[in-house]
Amino acid sequence: MVSLLFGGRSFEHEISIVSAISVAKVLPQIKYFIFLDAEHKFYWIPQEKMNSKTFSLGEYKKCKQIVLGNKDFYSIGFMGHKALNVGVILSVIHGGDGEDGIISSMLDFYEIPYIAPRPVACMLSYDKHLTKLYAKDRGVKVLPFSVLSRTSSTQALEQYPSILKPLRLGSSIGVSIIKNQEQLQYGLDSAFEYDHTILVEPFIEGVKEYNLAGYKNQNGQIVYSIIEEPKKEEFLNFDNKYLDFSRTEQVSRAEIPQELEMQLKENFAKLYNDCFEGAIIRCDFFVIDGEVYLNEINPIPGSMANYLFDHFANIINDIALPINKKINPNYQYIHKIQRAKGKA
Amino acid sequence: MVSLLFGGRSFEHEISIVSAISVAKVLPQIKYFIFLDAEHKFYWIPQEKMNSKTFSLGEYKKCKQIVLGNKDFYSIGFMGHKALNVGVILSVIHGGDGEDGIISSMLDFYEIPYIAPRPVACMLSYDKHLTKLYAKDRGVKVLPFSVLSRTSSTQALEQYPSILKPLRLGSSIGVSIIKNQEQLQYGLDSAFEYDHTILVEPFIEGVKEYNLAGYKNQNGQIVYSIIEEPKKEEFLNFDNKYLDFSRTEQVSRAEIPQELEMQLKENFAKLYNDCFEGAIIRCDFFVIDGEVYLNEINPIPGSMANYLFDHFANIINDIALPINKKINPNYQYIHKIQRAKGKA
Repeated sequence: MVSLLFGGRSFEHEISIVSAISVAKVLPQIKYFIFLDAEHKFYWIPQEKMNSKTFSLGEYKKCKQIVLGNKDFYSIGFMGHKALNVGVILSVIHGGDGEDGIISSMLDFYEIPYIAPRPVACMLSYDKHLTKLYAKDRGVKVLPFSVLSRTSSTQALEQYPSILKPLRLGSSIGVSIIKNQEQLQYGLDSAFEYDHTILVEPFIEGVKEYNLAGYKNQNGQIVYSIIEEPKKEEFLNFDNKYLDFSRTEQVSRAEIPQELEMQLKENFAKLYNDCFEGAIIRCDFFVIDGEVYLNEINPIPGSMANYLFDHFANIINDIALPINKKINPNYQYIHKIQRAKGKA
Repeated sequence: MVSLLFGGRSFEHEISIVSAISVAKVLPQIKYFIFLDAEHKFYWIPQEKMNSKTFSLGEYKKCKQIVLGNKDFYSIGFMGHKALNVGVILSVIHGGDGEDGIISSMLDFYEIPYIAPRPVACMLSYDKHLTKLYAKDRGVKVLPFSVLSRTSSTQALEQYPSILKPLRLGSSIGVSIIKNQEQLQYGLDSAFEYDHTILVEPFIEGVKEYNLAGYKNQNGQIVYSIIEEPKKEEFLNFDNKYLDFSRTEQVSRAEIPQELEMQLKENFAKLYNDCFEGAIIRCDFFVIDGEVYLNEINPIPGSMANYLFDHFANIINDIALPINKKINPNYQYIHKIQRAKGKA
């Protein structure tokens, strides 16, 4: 039993809605559609209302409001709270609330099983600086980078072309390519609108890019998607990506030698194990002079339904979900202190 | 207005209770004492019940149960939920639920102001491997280390003496010093009881250790505690530390040259800025051949009340609390898609 969670307070709020609508089309078994609005209220959206106007016109506010509680979501009634029995939550909340680990933390706390990265995995993939540190530590190459705050000197930037990204955001929002000194201020302004810290990397014209998604199944094996070579005019901007999320047809397989395919999968596995268990993630790689570099980890890819389309409905039952250990205090240390203080 | 949050589902549950009792003694202005039990239920503990027996005998279960909701904690009654008006939450939940970022995530989500590290800061300090990556990236030295899982070869370990620590736990639980091959298996077993991953470091007999706590105030300045040289028989074990938490007298100042004091403060600032804003943290440093090394970051030090005792009551009003940005979706991209599809 699966329920779909989407929305969230983030610049990617609308992307999540579009993702949810496209997942709904390929996953017939969804029990509840749970929408989190920008005010942090949860609503139960009936299947027939799962279209963009429900949200853009604010009609969702007429749907039933629900709350998170121990082991379930609950509807609020005159006779108290009633458990919905949501089953496993599949989260497609992008950006803030979702990819930053907030919702994962809450689902962990309330002991609701979910398909999404655990909190630490969210934070390592959401913050592009931490992603670099994580990847390097795992033996995965990354492009050189620098991290800027509003007060940083921009001298380090004076290598063109470079690409500027808000540190914590996906879907290419606030991203720009800077080709010369004149474009610099505009690029900084665009990125700082979304984050107080930004990441700067060299922009490599025409670099080969390959996307690979996957998850770990209950036998402990990683199940890979096909490898896609994303289409691009220069780079996929927000509008392109956004329209892309609303497609449900499957992407096409990249024509690459088997050895490169192996290399990409090896790098994926280094990044996935064991940090990303419970999640379907997509790693976006560059290939430069035959070497694989991690560009970004998308812990909740908007296009997840497209990528693994031909068996997406089965994934829900196949994916391994980590279990949190129960801990029961026995109060032996408190008893010891009580004795030490002569109170027991 | 401040309310104290403590307990949590963790191996450090009891330590948190003892911390809370000692904080209660030095902070007269606490409005509510909020206890999180190992079942993840919240209870409002009246001030006169703030003693260890309330918890060790399970008497807290007779106290009023409360729930987390938007902007506040709520008591549950026949007439619905009633807001308590908790004000700012001061969290002393150690280990799981607290230092791992779960509670911080929930307080962020429900928009309740709190004194504790933000979720990312929690995760970077809770996971000792991530702490190493973070410190190195900030230009702070750390001891060499290796990370082991149950299936790792222990060959890398064969340098003695070394110290084995569960990757994600504080208060010296599961930590042991291994002096020779014979002690190795016992050390591994002790650590793996608490985590599936462990950190191994060289153990340096008689190394100089200095603890420094601090926080950033509303003027953007870091306010430092005195620097303490912790007493140790070999290293502080769980029982020592635990009994230590129940003390409320202030610790004594280390006798060190001004230059070293400066160096310790500089290293603290590199680690604190800006990741740990909103928190009172303690950094434990080693000094080896005149060089400062980070040992651990304690994001919610159990001894916080002792360390900053002479002005602890004022800190609550002095500490800078980060504010989360509001984001209101305008649905312009959904409108664009609707137009593109001829639906609008």
